[in-house]
Amino acid sequence: MSLGPIAPPPRLLMGPGPATADPRVLRAMSAQLVGQFDPAMTRTMDETMALYRQVFATTNEHTFLVDGTSRAGIEAALVSLLEPGDRVLVPVFGRFGHLLVEIAERCRAEVHTVEAPWGEVVEAEAVEEAVRRVRPRLLAVVQGDTSTTMLQPLAGIGEVCRAHDVLLYCDATASLGGNPFETDAWGVDAATAGLQKCLGGPSGSAPVTLSPAAVGVIEARKHVEAGIRDPDDLARGTRIASNYLDLAQVMDYWGPRRLNHHTEATTMLYGARECARLLVEEGVEQAVARHRLHGAAMLAGVRGMGLEVFGDVTHKMSNVVAVHVPPGVDADGARAAMLADFGIEIGTSFGPLHGRVWRIGTMGHNARTDAVLTTLACLEQVLRAVGAPVTAGGGVGAAREVYAA
Amino acid sequence: MSLGPIAPPPRLLMGPGPATADPRVLRAMSAQLVGQFDPAMTRTMDETMALYRQVFATTNEHTFLVDGTSRAGIEAALVSLLEPGDRVLVPVFGRFGHLLVEIAERCRAEVHTVEAPWGEVVEAEAVEEAVRRVRPRLLAVVQGDTSTTMLQPLAGIGEVCRAHDVLLYCDATASLGGNPFETDAWGVDAATAGLQKCLGGPSGSAPVTLSPAAVGVIEARKHVEAGIRDPDDLARGTRIASNYLDLAQVMDYWGPRRLNHHTEATTMLYGARECARLLVEEGVEQAVARHRLHGAAMLAGVRGMGLEVFGDVTHKMSNVVAVHVPPGVDADGARAAMLADFGIEIGTSFGPLHGRVWRIGTMGHNARTDAVLTTLACLEQVLRAVGAPVTAGGGVGAAREVYAA
Repeated sequence: MSLGPIAPPPRLLMGPGPATADPRVLRAMSAQLVGQFDPAMTRTMDETMALYRQVFATTNEHTFLVDGTSRAGIEAALVSLLEPGDRVLVPVFGRFGHLLVEIAERCRAEVHTVEAPWGEVVEAEAVEEAVRRVRPRLLAVVQGDTSTTMLQPLAGIGEVCRAHDVLLYCDATASLGGNPFETDAWGVDAATAGLQKCLGGPSGSAPVTLSPAAVGVIEARKHVEAGIRDPDDLARGTRIASNYLDLAQVMDYWGPRRLNHHTEATTMLYGARECARLLVEEGVEQAVARHRLHGAAMLAGVRGMGLEVFGDVTHKMSNVVAVHVPPGVDADGARAAMLADFGIEIGTSFGPLHGRVWRIGTMGHNARTDAVLTTLACLEQVLRAVGAPVTAGGGVGAAREVYAA
Repeated sequence: MSLGPIAPPPRLLMGPGPATADPRVLRAMSAQLVGQFDPAMTRTMDETMALYRQVFATTNEHTFLVDGTSRAGIEAALVSLLEPGDRVLVPVFGRFGHLLVEIAERCRAEVHTVEAPWGEVVEAEAVEEAVRRVRPRLLAVVQGDTSTTMLQPLAGIGEVCRAHDVLLYCDATASLGGNPFETDAWGVDAATAGLQKCLGGPSGSAPVTLSPAAVGVIEARKHVEAGIRDPDDLARGTRIASNYLDLAQVMDYWGPRRLNHHTEATTMLYGARECARLLVEEGVEQAVARHRLHGAAMLAGVRGMGLEVFGDVTHKMSNVVAVHVPPGVDADGARAAMLADFGIEIGTSFGPLHGRVWRIGTMGHNARTDAVLTTLACLEQVLRAVGAPVTAGGGVGAAREVYAA
């Protein structure tokens, strides 16, 4: 076997993520390494922490990266916060709610759910009722569940959690940077994300922020590992079940003690820093507004083409829309045609929605007019080619109207 | 705060790793993303699996990447192989043996050790005696412990494990690509590594290979997660305590079923593929020989300068040497001078060796004549400047003799 260097085909990634990365992020990731404790490295880590405080809208000191995909961030938060037997409440309104349940169960927590049908969000009243009944230590919720495109309102849930002294964890992977997220204002104790959605980077690094209350819970379980512990590093509380995802140790690595844990993934750090730097340079509010504009254009466009939108659109994330596959159309065949003939990727969904909806994203670097209009133009051609009813020019025309308004 | 793009200072990383990355690996990592299930993506994943089979010297089908640093690979192997209460035997001869103990304990295994003093390796006879006594399910061992530079011989341990029906796991993070590693010939059931040592890449991706026996153990514990499971996905055995590091699910993502788990860290995948591609292009044996040559030159060089080498040199890894800090020299001050005045990083060590030895690496892209000679030339100047006794020209001269031979 003789292989050449990587040469990926040109793609416009308009699915539910990963989206096409911002070329500036990829350039940052080609920078050469420095040593793990080089002053240039620790300064870069500190800068990255400061940038993500702005992204998460928080003053939390403990705002840093977990070296893994967004799912690593979720598990790090849950395994560090939850002790075996702790009660957790999870509002479930799509696949990623199920993922929180799954991970919390593996932490040996006692997991309770409050569910909404796919395509809807959970009412704050239902959450409050469940909190009163379950009396959880932690409420874990997805902000934007890409499987259904729904965006769960969090301000009300934050109030409920504060009123009942419940820690609040949010998975903001799919939504952060493209929809409002207010860690401090909403009373979120722990939030995690990924780079591959609205932040314009590749998967593989999970930004996380922890409130002082969350830090207190985690620090109370600190066990510095053998081989690097000092005599005065007394083990405390129930040891966290993971070493890699032990946020007590990860905080000691990112914090002033700089205690060695993993070897920071320098290239992913460079990428994560650049994602946040570009977002802060644009302005987080401006980026959210940009996602709102292009998401509205895509929504109008798919409707203008004659497609029906899935779910409660008033609670949709800005950055992704799910459309029903027209009757008689082979859902995966049409996606394959988009990819093969136009180099454009759109998504399917999971479980009950697989083959029933397409998910079309407008996120990160691809929340742009040309990306929206090109996708609509090409989707019209694909639908036309398979004989689906489609309004000629209706998609692009409707999107243009949004931009003109 | 207004920050510019990342602009790391030029460094020659001659510590125990990360080493300076091969620029070709960094270029590969600047390639644009493709979608998670794009045919170009799945082909790249398959190519990467095939390349790492050559790197690990194995025919194991299940040879793939864990999305995290080398420590994530270690934990993935241990948490997937070990059930609570399983007996594990860990030969400990440095910090990273303690890390295996630590991680296995967090898996709630019953951990036993057989120890050697730092600077030595563990005798196969001592391992066999411990295996007979403990009757472990798994033996977990570090091949090259960078904390001491020792390279544990594994062929004999593999024989012991086969004779006693014990699974063998090896952490080859620091050694793979720069020292012989024979997964199949030695009877290794699971091995994991990282990119940042002899493979010439950045930290953040953990290659792993699993024997059919290891796969059998892991598959017997498969629980496909809610939200994506089919009705015939029956839960089996004791659920693996981590979701992110659940190798049963990771194998279903890398395998023909392509069952969604995490979103593969595409940029790290590109980097991992390029690391292995370059190694295979050079030839794994040739790369090992190159590390042997430059390691020998560095060893001769530090001795030629008048420095004393730490530990049992007959069992040293090719790619790193530990030298005693001369009496009266400030160990960290000298390292800081190397960095500030010459842009060269050399390492300290952990625990009992911190401040007592420097660790000097010759690995990956930096296993090169110019890197070795430059490091020796500059270290001589740093030692001279602090008044340490040093043989003028002795380091470079001794290294040159190795190259001339």
